[in-house]
Amino acid sequence: MLSWGVLQTFAERLKKAQYASGGLVCVGLDPQLAKLPRDLAQDRTPLYAFNRRVIDATRGLAAAYKPQIAFYSAVGAEEELAASIRYIRERAPDALVILDAKRGDIGNTAAAYAREAFDRYGADAVTINPYMGGDAVLPFLTRPDRGALLLCRTSNPGAKDFQDLTFDGLPLYRHVAMHAAQHWNAQGNLMLVVGATVPREMAELRAAHPHLPFLVPGIGAQGGDLKATLAAGLNAQGLGLLISASRSIIYAGGGTEAAIHAEAAKLHDEINAERPPARRTAAAQA
Amino acid sequence: MLSWGVLQTFAERLKKAQYASGGLVCVGLDPQLAKLPRDLAQDRTPLYAFNRRVIDATRGLAAAYKPQIAFYSAVGAEEELAASIRYIRERAPDALVILDAKRGDIGNTAAAYAREAFDRYGADAVTINPYMGGDAVLPFLTRPDRGALLLCRTSNPGAKDFQDLTFDGLPLYRHVAMHAAQHWNAQGNLMLVVGATVPREMAELRAAHPHLPFLVPGIGAQGGDLKATLAAGLNAQGLGLLISASRSIIYAGGGTEAAIHAEAAKLHDEINAERPPARRTAAAQA
Repeated sequence: MLSWGVLQTFAERLKKAQYASGGLVCVGLDPQLAKLPRDLAQDRTPLYAFNRRVIDATRGLAAAYKPQIAFYSAVGAEEELAASIRYIRERAPDALVILDAKRGDIGNTAAAYAREAFDRYGADAVTINPYMGGDAVLPFLTRPDRGALLLCRTSNPGAKDFQDLTFDGLPLYRHVAMHAAQHWNAQGNLMLVVGATVPREMAELRAAHPHLPFLVPGIGAQGGDLKATLAAGLNAQGLGLLISASRSIIYAGGGTEAAIHAEAAKLHDEINAERPPARRTAAAQA
Repeated sequence: MLSWGVLQTFAERLKKAQYASGGLVCVGLDPQLAKLPRDLAQDRTPLYAFNRRVIDATRGLAAAYKPQIAFYSAVGAEEELAASIRYIRERAPDALVILDAKRGDIGNTAAAYAREAFDRYGADAVTINPYMGGDAVLPFLTRPDRGALLLCRTSNPGAKDFQDLTFDGLPLYRHVAMHAAQHWNAQGNLMLVVGATVPREMAELRAAHPHLPFLVPGIGAQGGDLKATLAAGLNAQGLGLLISASRSIIYAGGGTEAAIHAEAAKLHDEINAERPPARRTAAAQA
């Protein structure tokens, strides 16, 4: 994507998306056939139809959209995913597209997954799993205009099974963050995934990594505490976060456009109420 | 899959596949367009055409086939992957199909990935990443006739970044194996992924987990030591392993059927030369 004659970096794209939306909301596009509104049940491409409704209802409010690829792969709906991403580009051109795929594999396999995310689907960023280490992560970070979002401390109950194991006085997820910041972020296109269910851990990560942006799942259906999350994770500029919600927004009020819009606007405003006022104004003017 | 009037468990399917092939070979189906034999370059479904050749060349020798989904997803070839798996069922009905996807996500997302692997593609097993913990793993273990292969100590250089970090005297990958064996394997359908590049670590895992089967990548193109791997990983019955090779087999001799067959037969025989003779005879007769 060319702009002002130069390629925008991922970090620039992220800030532009936050300013353009005047906020930090990331809308998860996780459509499940069994949960779709009844009026779409007979549509020939129901996931795409539902996503169009969600995108129309939230554009301008969402800094990012995050389709979870599993919900498309499970039912052979790759084309509906691709069409949904094209629709975002038409209707919300400043919003980031984050492919939530949690990829983690080595060398030429990781390169193939990067082509899937960035070339086939044209995503701006993709979520990545750190377990296999550097050669599973670096292939996603070679393009300065595309980002990788590395799982760090996730929001689910099982996160404690391994992520919280401690060595040399620090839990595994802190080692992941340190290693990533020191070795993998030469292009400034790395983000961490840090769950809203663990604000104390997020505060420690923010203190250790003041400049890394976090993607934050766990608000909404998973019960994370929004105020505590923002207090823990916002950086000095009132940025540094994308707050992701999926089910709580897309199925609001049974999935009507008005209810989806209202729920996204509510989250957008609740977030901004906790951000520094000067920055909110600057964002609104940008 | 009904047989003798009862559902076979995954553990039974694994043993049957090993006995039917008289060996422990797993053939990775990782076709890359740029590497295909020239005579297939113009085929309309080149990945499927190449896989048919590999399957024809190795059926009867392979206990399992392991398609790496990234190579299909990168180029929108989901239908060629599905057709390749159907072709395995026709031509090598006793062989296991392991979908190498390294999935790792929570709750309803993990359930969607399980539907992709087991229902959409009809795979017998799928590779899984442990980083997110129990709620990311258990949805793949609920069907007694299907298995999950959990990343434990992988064969790549980056594996040391986190898997080797030590707490309470044991490296992370040992904690993963212990936790999995204790909490997740009630149905006996769990395997561990342990790389051939680390025979010492494999020996420790075998000693700690005498009954868990391992999938072993890293032989062939990655340079793992086959004899050391077998000495470290075979269980008391001369089983307990699937030895996976991809590039070294499928691109042998430029990808001719004869060369592919010869390379797979060579690996099959080199493995069996290290197994207890009585068991090899029993396997050949089964």
